[in-house]
Amino acid sequence: MGVRRAHGGSGVEVAALAEQDDAVTVIASLADFWADPAGHLSRPPTGPTLSTESVERVPPVLPDARVFCVGLNYLQHVAEGSYRDQELPAYPTLFGRWPQSLTVDGATVPVPSSEDGLDWEGEVVAWVGAPLVDASPEEALAAVVGYSAFNDLTSRRAQKLTSQWTLGKNGDRSGPIGPIVPAAEVGDLRQGLRLRTRVNGETMQDATTDQMIYPVGETLSLVSHTLTLRPGDLLATGTPAGVGYGRKPPRLLQPGDTVEVEVERLGVVRNTVVGDDRRTAGGSPARHRPYDGIGAGLSARR
Amino acid sequence: MGVRRAHGGSGVEVAALAEQDDAVTVIASLADFWADPAGHLSRPPTGPTLSTESVERVPPVLPDARVFCVGLNYLQHVAEGSYRDQELPAYPTLFGRWPQSLTVDGATVPVPSSEDGLDWEGEVVAWVGAPLVDASPEEALAAVVGYSAFNDLTSRRAQKLTSQWTLGKNGDRSGPIGPIVPAAEVGDLRQGLRLRTRVNGETMQDATTDQMIYPVGETLSLVSHTLTLRPGDLLATGTPAGVGYGRKPPRLLQPGDTVEVEVERLGVVRNTVVGDDRRTAGGSPARHRPYDGIGAGLSARR
Repeated sequence: MGVRRAHGGSGVEVAALAEQDDAVTVIASLADFWADPAGHLSRPPTGPTLSTESVERVPPVLPDARVFCVGLNYLQHVAEGSYRDQELPAYPTLFGRWPQSLTVDGATVPVPSSEDGLDWEGEVVAWVGAPLVDASPEEALAAVVGYSAFNDLTSRRAQKLTSQWTLGKNGDRSGPIGPIVPAAEVGDLRQGLRLRTRVNGETMQDATTDQMIYPVGETLSLVSHTLTLRPGDLLATGTPAGVGYGRKPPRLLQPGDTVEVEVERLGVVRNTVVGDDRRTAGGSPARHRPYDGIGAGLSARR
Repeated sequence: MGVRRAHGGSGVEVAALAEQDDAVTVIASLADFWADPAGHLSRPPTGPTLSTESVERVPPVLPDARVFCVGLNYLQHVAEGSYRDQELPAYPTLFGRWPQSLTVDGATVPVPSSEDGLDWEGEVVAWVGAPLVDASPEEALAAVVGYSAFNDLTSRRAQKLTSQWTLGKNGDRSGPIGPIVPAAEVGDLRQGLRLRTRVNGETMQDATTDQMIYPVGETLSLVSHTLTLRPGDLLATGTPAGVGYGRKPPRLLQPGDTVEVEVERLGVVRNTVVGDDRRTAGGSPARHRPYDGIGAGLSARR
């Protein structure tokens, strides 16, 4: 996990969480960790041990990392969504998140003023641990150093405004991600890790990762033929069936709701949803301008 | 522009380029610049003056900035592409670039091994200079501190593999961006700045920015209703007609080709295309695995 010490100003560090959740032991600075992630994950941490109260938890993500996300990676999820009548693409449908959208287990997640709620998408994230250029699927899979549980919380209205999903996938604190579990402790996702998403305790998604259409190695191989993957880049592997907007009637997360993603061997990511008034920590500029302003302004131009 | 000193290790700094292109004067560190971009752009720089030979030019982009890009923002470009038979969306079609895909005027741009060439897309980028939360179009436009010329060089095959364009828009060094010109010197894009793209000296795109369908203020306002924009975030405002894949016959940039984007008041961004063997600066892992591997691997799963 990533931590920022309350007093110290040394930036983000990567630390190991104690069994009892009451302490962390520093492994390395964020940059040093990602310079040799496999090495750091294979050795016991040697940095100072700090109480969890004395640190702020943050994602162990490099600020310039790229978060690739696979859409449509479970057949039953494809069948519940708006792409159900289209032919399944031969390649993984990849969209992106910026690291600024990521947060941690326990964080509050605001519903943007333009949304009727947030939708859940329980997922597994794979962490790239080595550079990949024109890599084969086997090389790409071997470069994965760890996995985390992830919730790809989605602003559906923004996602569906146009053909491109980017806006709806980058809301503030909309991507809570769990601690990195070393790949050696996880094994291969194709063995079928159980993934469940619960809303206020009620199970909404329950699937296993062997149902993925596009495996991790093949997807990272594809990406590496267009751009050079670097240590610290992430792949969110897609969500199974049971998201809110596919339910009858549709259901979206409201302020006060708690959502949990639990993945076998990866643990639980639990977050509470709050209102748009809690989007920013401190004060903010004038708010709550009518969202329809954009529509009116654009109509006049056409 | 951004610079990194050859000797010093002080990270990226923002500097002003002298008229003769032979020297730069440091304004501030990257973080300090984006803490008060309007202030820094309104004052003469007070840092040391360095010869251009002693610095590496880099984009003045925060590593965790978000690069929003508008697709389909000029009617004649819509008409030349694969979306021509669809209704024009009521909202700007937004896709994303990660800052790692950005580079500078003069950089070489590699054609990925999976592409038959690169396509050009001359554009104007707007730089966000203040936090924006649920902002009106007027507030959002007032927060723009500067503009740059930009080439949204595109891996068309990767872009068109699925419904989502992200992969094809993030090739290594595929986004050359020019120096920031203060908004006060540029005025409003709706006045119509002339934008031209040339390939080996031949004009391929020639349009004016008043033809944009979705104006800068309205688009940033829309984004700010889903996520909090921060100083240093970017908006690439879309390309006009004349891209390579819309020509008859189609034409793509090949190694050895030079492509220039020239925008009135913003200057020229000129880059040379190279082969995939020059994708990484130093050595790299095993290369040139057959790209079709991904297709074969996936077919076997379906």
